[in-house]
Amino acid sequence: MASIPVQTAGGNYSVRVQPGLLQNLSTHLRKTGLAHGKIFVVTTPEIWKLWGKAFLASFAKQPTKPEILFLPSGERHKRLASIEKLADEMVERGARRDSLLVAFGGGVAGDLTGFLAAIYMRGIPYVQVPTTYLAQIDSSVGGKTGVNLRTGKNLIGSFHQPAVVLTDPRLLKTLLPRELRAGMVESIKAAVLGDGAYFQWLEKNCSTMLRGDIDALTQAIHVSVRIKARIVSADERESGQRMLLNLGHTIGHAIEAATQYRKLLHGEAIAWGMIAAGRLAVARGAWQAADAARVERLLFRLGPLPKFSVTPQRLLQLTDADKKNRSHTRNFVLPVKLGRAIVVTDVTAEEMLAAIRSMMQTVQELGV
Amino acid sequence: MASIPVQTAGGNYSVRVQPGLLQNLSTHLRKTGLAHGKIFVVTTPEIWKLWGKAFLASFAKQPTKPEILFLPSGERHKRLASIEKLADEMVERGARRDSLLVAFGGGVAGDLTGFLAAIYMRGIPYVQVPTTYLAQIDSSVGGKTGVNLRTGKNLIGSFHQPAVVLTDPRLLKTLLPRELRAGMVESIKAAVLGDGAYFQWLEKNCSTMLRGDIDALTQAIHVSVRIKARIVSADERESGQRMLLNLGHTIGHAIEAATQYRKLLHGEAIAWGMIAAGRLAVARGAWQAADAARVERLLFRLGPLPKFSVTPQRLLQLTDADKKNRSHTRNFVLPVKLGRAIVVTDVTAEEMLAAIRSMMQTVQELGV
Repeated sequence: MASIPVQTAGGNYSVRVQPGLLQNLSTHLRKTGLAHGKIFVVTTPEIWKLWGKAFLASFAKQPTKPEILFLPSGERHKRLASIEKLADEMVERGARRDSLLVAFGGGVAGDLTGFLAAIYMRGIPYVQVPTTYLAQIDSSVGGKTGVNLRTGKNLIGSFHQPAVVLTDPRLLKTLLPRELRAGMVESIKAAVLGDGAYFQWLEKNCSTMLRGDIDALTQAIHVSVRIKARIVSADERESGQRMLLNLGHTIGHAIEAATQYRKLLHGEAIAWGMIAAGRLAVARGAWQAADAARVERLLFRLGPLPKFSVTPQRLLQLTDADKKNRSHTRNFVLPVKLGRAIVVTDVTAEEMLAAIRSMMQTVQELGV
Repeated sequence: MASIPVQTAGGNYSVRVQPGLLQNLSTHLRKTGLAHGKIFVVTTPEIWKLWGKAFLASFAKQPTKPEILFLPSGERHKRLASIEKLADEMVERGARRDSLLVAFGGGVAGDLTGFLAAIYMRGIPYVQVPTTYLAQIDSSVGGKTGVNLRTGKNLIGSFHQPAVVLTDPRLLKTLLPRELRAGMVESIKAAVLGDGAYFQWLEKNCSTMLRGDIDALTQAIHVSVRIKARIVSADERESGQRMLLNLGHTIGHAIEAATQYRKLLHGEAIAWGMIAAGRLAVARGAWQAADAARVERLLFRLGPLPKFSVTPQRLLQLTDADKKNRSHTRNFVLPVKLGRAIVVTDVTAEEMLAAIRSMMQTVQELGV
């Protein structure tokens, strides 16, 4: 179960999930056939401190060492200014069209490095080596790259598929527990929208995963990536199928915006967003209340979700700013059974507001 | 002779060249089928002062007017900071995935707007309405978009083809004579590398064009665009054929870099670069000296070229920094007859230096 193929208009590649893969990283990079020029690694000082030595070990016998470029940690560095700084450094260190970029970090490093690769000299290849659970199951796959604007998240970017995704679940040993929990929300999301059996598996293995069991994590990464790969392969550019991946994201994004992206991790906001979406689906009779409750129970088994405070009206307003909405239609992803979701365009502001109100009630009761 | 088709992997579109086209601009935009959302125009204050009223005239009967975004004139604003500023303005004025961008200006506005379209919300459509001769015959066609870095020109960018190029030669009425002359260098380049009959036509009509005759200019734009469209259609991404368009550019770019992009217009630097490339071709017996001399004579009929001062060694060094060179090979475009050029990879540093020396001699003698 080593490799998962992803096939898109922008390129075919595979996601390799294998504990201990980092030990043979340079071999895997050479296998892409794209490592004949210089290799540039974009990483954060924190990740490099933990894993830099292990990263470099497989290059010990190589004639040329990779060049390491540092990106400060955190969402606030996911901006064009960082792209410009990294690009200037690349020029100064001799990067050309035959150079290869490697993203070694979480979602921010992956999105930013992918975008840098997309626009450096009008496009060079890159490889994802994701280090967080969320990046391993989600953001490293699918070729969405980009940065934030002052006026909104991910508003600047490209579709640029990686040459390969090299995932080592052992890297999760150093991941903060809160990061793991938030990442697992997206696994639950993938299960709810695409794989009922996986949902049951997650119910059974949730605690094992939370303890950091590498076998269980590896299996979960595998299934989550397979679901995402299936959807992305059908629709690279989010015209239909791919919208399903936004389950919980319409309201989740609004929560992130309302809290200035500071109070909640992405996955935590999505958890609340999924709760709201589930209740909306139940309210319009599209989904069984028992299934929605099962999803909420599993979400809360990951741990308590952060509380936040915002008026329902304000959240509703913010859902409209989501870039997924084209003019005059409001796309919304509705779960209809465990393992299946659909995209609808007829959700009214009233329905949305009712679901947001119901969710905010729970935020008050169960948020911490 | 209204429309020239361009067919690339990144999209098919046409270049419409027609005096007076600006009067029906809104009709032409609607014909793309992409103007159902908001229209955002990127232009410079100078161009807008001259042509803004004429631009808006065709929208008089439209329910919604285009939004106008201003970009300060000049190469030094072709940077990521301008992209960020314009993107923020677009968000604030309600631009979405179904919005349409229009580049209304010269090469800088076109390259920058095209890139903005390539990366705004991961890609929206755009239309080129070029206002300089150089933009009309060259930069508006082919989908190369991008910005400069501190460390070099056009090092950040995308291939993003316009939905249509709408060219009104009457806009050239307000073009500075020096800009027209510099632009005509690229017409001569197109003739030398791809169309011997066009070269003869240019010899005959050069003076008429310099006087600003719209019929002659329209014809020249047409043929130049046809040559570029033919090459770009064969090779969008510059792996083979498209390199031919770099005739004169290896040394031309080095001259621009050596003079900090200040002293010479792009076309003027390319004129010197073509002179050097021609002499190199003659020196290695690949081209007839009489043809090279004919090209030089035609170049000087446009007017005197600016003088500049730099050591040949320094220029040689700067040719190596050109992003067209992959590691270990130096691509060079060699004219072999009037109407045909080839790409070679075996040009030695010595040959290059000799050609640069010979050119610098002429710079001293004929530059002003």
